[in-house]
Amino acid sequence: MDYYSKQINRLVAQLSSLPGIGSKSAQRLAFHILNMPQENVEALSDALLEARRNVRYCSMCYTLTDDTLCPICKREDRDHRTIMVVENSRDLAAYEKTGKYEGVYHVLHGSISPMLGIGPGDIRLKELLKRLQSDVDEVIIATNSSLEGETTAMYVSKLIKPTGIKVTRIASGVPVGGDLEYIDEVTLLRALEGRREL
Amino acid sequence: MDYYSKQINRLVAQLSSLPGIGSKSAQRLAFHILNMPQENVEALSDALLEARRNVRYCSMCYTLTDDTLCPICKREDRDHRTIMVVENSRDLAAYEKTGKYEGVYHVLHGSISPMLGIGPGDIRLKELLKRLQSDVDEVIIATNSSLEGETTAMYVSKLIKPTGIKVTRIASGVPVGGDLEYIDEVTLLRALEGRREL
Repeated sequence: MDYYSKQINRLVAQLSSLPGIGSKSAQRLAFHILNMPQENVEALSDALLEARRNVRYCSMCYTLTDDTLCPICKREDRDHRTIMVVENSRDLAAYEKTGKYEGVYHVLHGSISPMLGIGPGDIRLKELLKRLQSDVDEVIIATNSSLEGETTAMYVSKLIKPTGIKVTRIASGVPVGGDLEYIDEVTLLRALEGRREL
Repeated sequence: MDYYSKQINRLVAQLSSLPGIGSKSAQRLAFHILNMPQENVEALSDALLEARRNVRYCSMCYTLTDDTLCPICKREDRDHRTIMVVENSRDLAAYEKTGKYEGVYHVLHGSISPMLGIGPGDIRLKELLKRLQSDVDEVIIATNSSLEGETTAMYVSKLIKPTGIKVTRIASGVPVGGDLEYIDEVTLLRALEGRREL
């Protein structure tokens, strides 16, 4: 691509390395950015750097955040005795958007997948078990209803059962094979209401 | 969105302000970026800032570049007596990809659009006329074949005719209403070969 100058080529290359951004989109984005006011580009660049620099795991639920505790774990009006187990931070956000869940979360950062060589030791399960040593009434398993999500749900429930803590799974309102973050709030709520003990 | 921390929200907001990136894509991108190695995020941020800071118009053809002259105007093996007039830098790139055009370009940065209130004085036409004072054999008008592009082509040709310089228009191989940058190289070449004098 010697028809653009070096720095424009570099910007296009950087943008097209992001997921879901092809070569055409990257060019469109690059020229949009080149036409943006300087301070807006600085704000974008700054947001990238600051977020990446300060990102860490919540010491309680392991969602990505920029403080020791995430905004949800910090809140005293949430029910800290009910823990919803999700695969990632975007799934947490999906349930938060319903505005009806009062408990807290635990983010596994993945699911058990023998195909991809991801075992129970590769996700945040140890951390979940540690949390269960304090007072917990219920663990709601809200992993995706994919093969990996179901495998993870079964594994987690078998792990927790001996502790005597109630373990539930969100109902099958969630379409099989679907990804939690793309499902509408009503379906997500129906799934929460219809949860059954494992 | 108080379910993400402040800096993650800020990153998502910044990303979704870009064209073609909705709220879901912005979240996906944000979490992808948070999981990237720190140095890759720095490279992306740096590419944004550097490209924006150093971007300027080529003093000859007015394409976006980072030097006084763009890579094409700098080359002595290009035919500087043949000028192709395009609407923007992406259209220039589209013709460069054919690898067969030997002349140089002139980037108008827009097209005449009475609907949007864009007149001849709002695009780089004065600069084109100034270039024509030096030795030029032919001006090839390669604006889009949209209403605005055709209007601009007619206007430019009427402006140049009195100077006695040959004015041509790329052939109608380009589908009517189409956008130059999305057309395949073969069609672009056919349009170039079939150009006719206005």
